[in-house]
Amino acid sequence: MNPPRPLAITMGDAAGIGPEIIIKAFAAEQAQDCVVVGDAQVIAAAAASVAIPGALGSSVARIEHMAQWQSLPPGVIPVLQAHGLEPDSLRDLVAGQVDARAGAAAHAAIVTAAHAALRGEVAAVVTAPIHKEALHAAGVPFPGHTELLQHLAGGVPVRMMLANDELRTVLVTIHMSVREALDAVTFEAVLETLRITHLAAQRWGQPHPRLAVAGLNPHAGEGGLFGDEEIRILAPAIRQARAEGIDASGPHAPDTVFMRARNTPGHAGEFDVVIAMLHDHGLIPVKYLGLDAGVNVTLGLPFVRTSPDHGTAFDLAGRGCANPASLVSALAMARQLSRFA
Amino acid sequence: MNPPRPLAITMGDAAGIGPEIIIKAFAAEQAQDCVVVGDAQVIAAAAASVAIPGALGSSVARIEHMAQWQSLPPGVIPVLQAHGLEPDSLRDLVAGQVDARAGAAAHAAIVTAAHAALRGEVAAVVTAPIHKEALHAAGVPFPGHTELLQHLAGGVPVRMMLANDELRTVLVTIHMSVREALDAVTFEAVLETLRITHLAAQRWGQPHPRLAVAGLNPHAGEGGLFGDEEIRILAPAIRQARAEGIDASGPHAPDTVFMRARNTPGHAGEFDVVIAMLHDHGLIPVKYLGLDAGVNVTLGLPFVRTSPDHGTAFDLAGRGCANPASLVSALAMARQLSRFA
Repeated sequence: MNPPRPLAITMGDAAGIGPEIIIKAFAAEQAQDCVVVGDAQVIAAAAASVAIPGALGSSVARIEHMAQWQSLPPGVIPVLQAHGLEPDSLRDLVAGQVDARAGAAAHAAIVTAAHAALRGEVAAVVTAPIHKEALHAAGVPFPGHTELLQHLAGGVPVRMMLANDELRTVLVTIHMSVREALDAVTFEAVLETLRITHLAAQRWGQPHPRLAVAGLNPHAGEGGLFGDEEIRILAPAIRQARAEGIDASGPHAPDTVFMRARNTPGHAGEFDVVIAMLHDHGLIPVKYLGLDAGVNVTLGLPFVRTSPDHGTAFDLAGRGCANPASLVSALAMARQLSRFA
Repeated sequence: MNPPRPLAITMGDAAGIGPEIIIKAFAAEQAQDCVVVGDAQVIAAAAASVAIPGALGSSVARIEHMAQWQSLPPGVIPVLQAHGLEPDSLRDLVAGQVDARAGAAAHAAIVTAAHAALRGEVAAVVTAPIHKEALHAAGVPFPGHTELLQHLAGGVPVRMMLANDELRTVLVTIHMSVREALDAVTFEAVLETLRITHLAAQRWGQPHPRLAVAGLNPHAGEGGLFGDEEIRILAPAIRQARAEGIDASGPHAPDTVFMRARNTPGHAGEFDVVIAMLHDHGLIPVKYLGLDAGVNVTLGLPFVRTSPDHGTAFDLAGRGCANPASLVSALAMARQLSRFA
């Protein structure tokens, strides 16, 4: 049997709340199976300011190789220094301010963690938030995690999934206007989303995932009366997916399909994942019950990647009051999705 | 002090589940303050097949004028015969089948109830579901309740609100494709929605309702990056509304504004009503926690009108297993909204 592999947590933008919520996750005993990838000094400074001296989360040790993570005494936080990131290079960083050095360090941490994941050294990558402007200032040519990870994995097609304990939804379109999204909802885009989701669900342990396709239009078009995208695009894509052995259904009325998929102790969901055409069709129900429990998952990569569903919160950085709940949820989701990977 | 006014319940399509759920609401002691408007024979037949003989909901009496409702013995269901509807005209109706006679009767009930509401004889109108095809077969030139009631009230502009115990959302666009909705989201439409909602909320007892405008695009356009409707249309409409003394805010990111407005014992909502640009932006969160609790409210009419958030359910009609929960919610909402009217 192989030795257990850790989860990698990238530290994110060091001027944001990333290091603080990472320390809090360790202090709350929610990260014993994790290695932080980033800068050991930054993590040590966060531990000194957040954790109770002597208690869990207060002690940090730099490791040189991922495999060393289990050789540390219990309770010590292992930090793998990001590749190419000079120790001491982030010394005078000001909390809450955009800094190219923090952008470069966040980038280095992601690259290091992704390479470790591609080599199979970690079970999953969980990313703390980064700041777009800092990345840009550092000359990183990617607007965010998803695009960078996609690039590092060789340009595979990916999709964003938002998930919490009761609902999983995968988006066909994300960061564009609704007007542009209407043109981006194509047969190929919907079919590709179904394929990516089907494969990802199989990897996380569901051999026959039930995928529900939410319509684009009210009442899923009401037979063509309220738009014909369901007839022209969605139904044919579902038919093709079914011909490929994918258990895809729909298009379903958007206003009830998420409720039908909701999986709670008192209500078994009818579907395992809902495919949403528009960003907010999918995100509104995932976030409705509270932001902390929402986890962002990138599907299509050759490894599991999750992240908390919030940003760097520069306005809160350095004040010690950031909430680690979403990071803790992201860690739990990463464990759940990688158990079978 | 004026005598208490009843709620009017229109019986809906007599071949659907309307009469059955009305009887069940009376039997469950949830409609003691109501008068059914429709056909006394249909309601008596439903009572005979659904209620326990001798128990609440089993006894029906035809009244000739709304004012007679309180003169009946306790427990007897008052039915005001719809104007122009001949007794015995619905005798051989088959449950679950489209019938022009049922469409005509449903229409007559709505007209009778609306006239009573316009005369101030009832506190509110609660409408059981009608069937579009039956209405059409009866030559009624309106596709649904909203358009018919709007016509009966002189053509005033109206908006649809979906509401449950924790969320109220008013829609700028409803039954059209997303592509058409993009063109229907205009300065005038948004401003009119804010005005109608503000006035309606004042009438139901909130002198300073907090209205949140949800964006159309992801992240409410992200400063113009994901669409400019927020900049061109929504923000100016909000500014104008504020200049008129309306407490309107936004445009807010659609994916979190509903969560922020959610009002539960543990979480006071930040807003009283959310204005949604698209049908499903608004309906997804209202329905997410379960269909039974969703109530449809027409704003802008000179009287309160609510309805359950489901259809005639022809597939269930006549089988005795229809669930009155949404009708009961619609009655409760009508009471709540009309208390101050």
